[in-house]
Amino acid sequence: MTVKNDFTIIPEPSLRRLPLYYDFLKRLETSDIKFISCTEIAQNLGFNPIQVRKDIEYTEIIGRPKVGYNIKELKLSIKDFLGWNNSKDAFLIGAGHLGIALLGYRGFMNSGINIISAFDNDPKKIDSIFFGKKIFNVSILGQLINRMNIKLCIITVPAPSAQSIVDIAIKSGVKVIWNFAPCILNVPDTIFIKNENLTSSLAILTRKLKDDFK
Amino acid sequence: MTVKNDFTIIPEPSLRRLPLYYDFLKRLETSDIKFISCTEIAQNLGFNPIQVRKDIEYTEIIGRPKVGYNIKELKLSIKDFLGWNNSKDAFLIGAGHLGIALLGYRGFMNSGINIISAFDNDPKKIDSIFFGKKIFNVSILGQLINRMNIKLCIITVPAPSAQSIVDIAIKSGVKVIWNFAPCILNVPDTIFIKNENLTSSLAILTRKLKDDFK
Repeated sequence: MTVKNDFTIIPEPSLRRLPLYYDFLKRLETSDIKFISCTEIAQNLGFNPIQVRKDIEYTEIIGRPKVGYNIKELKLSIKDFLGWNNSKDAFLIGAGHLGIALLGYRGFMNSGINIISAFDNDPKKIDSIFFGKKIFNVSILGQLINRMNIKLCIITVPAPSAQSIVDIAIKSGVKVIWNFAPCILNVPDTIFIKNENLTSSLAILTRKLKDDFK
Repeated sequence: MTVKNDFTIIPEPSLRRLPLYYDFLKRLETSDIKFISCTEIAQNLGFNPIQVRKDIEYTEIIGRPKVGYNIKELKLSIKDFLGWNNSKDAFLIGAGHLGIALLGYRGFMNSGINIISAFDNDPKKIDSIFFGKKIFNVSILGQLINRMNIKLCIITVPAPSAQSIVDIAIKSGVKVIWNFAPCILNVPDTIFIKNENLTSSLAILTRKLKDDFK
């Protein structure tokens, strides 16, 4: 899959690596180093230097010959390319264990999204607060998406409820969906959906175990 | 990335789709349908029929011309190929919100792994039970991996602790690692590691939001 806009087409694996470079550059902030080369980044993270250079060039930064990139500029360039400069508000639907784990996930800080509220249908959870975010009744989901102009929803409800929730979200104006429910969701072509199917990842691991460690 | 053994090389995207076919076939169990074609599977899941046929052929099942596959046999063939017939014992390290979410994740049932215990270093969590699984002190992790001959570990500790935990696990005999900590781990070539970096997934979504919904 590739993610494209008018200017740049970047393959998904490159896009997935950019945050890893960003994390690495952030860790260098406290050091005295001012410049870094692709080879050094690659060596530290165990990647191929040519691949690192290609990935970084998507952000349109220009390095200096024999010196490499100014670390501060490179960090900003990646951050800007990923859209992490202006954080986007998001709703999370399904305040089960996974939902609450995501509400508290520190990796999201400074990563372009701000989960402002969560939703559930369990009366015991409604109105409670986790990690500073209030859980609302899912019955007002559509209304709040609309009123607050929310474009991104994170779906952590059980599989049988996922399609109907997504239908409401899209009808109310959501354009991008991050789906953790273990099922295939039908969405119009205009909607961007990213599935995180843990069972699919598991297939890779169990197949490996089957092959090598019978 | 491809996952290979002596007989079959299957690309990772194909391997990731097989559990989706399996889930779909399971949902047909209660119906009267006995046979199904690749085209029907593809239509129901929104995939390309040629791709579905190719994926399924990796499991070495043979379909019947004009009839398709016997659903029961196809389900068994996928299950066997994925190594989901004999569940493998696993340890989970890090009983934070994400760790506990994974302990209770129902998608793992019948999916080839059985998380038998979890580990943490927080005295308040040690000896408590979540979803029927006991939390042990991480200080005895190596000892228990060794004694119980555990080959798979799931890492849900914070990034700064991940490398030292993984070093202990590998030294004690673990061969396959499912890493949810948002960092790059150094492991020997003989160890298979699958990273689930949520920040990387997020990059795909935020880039999309930046492109299309400024």
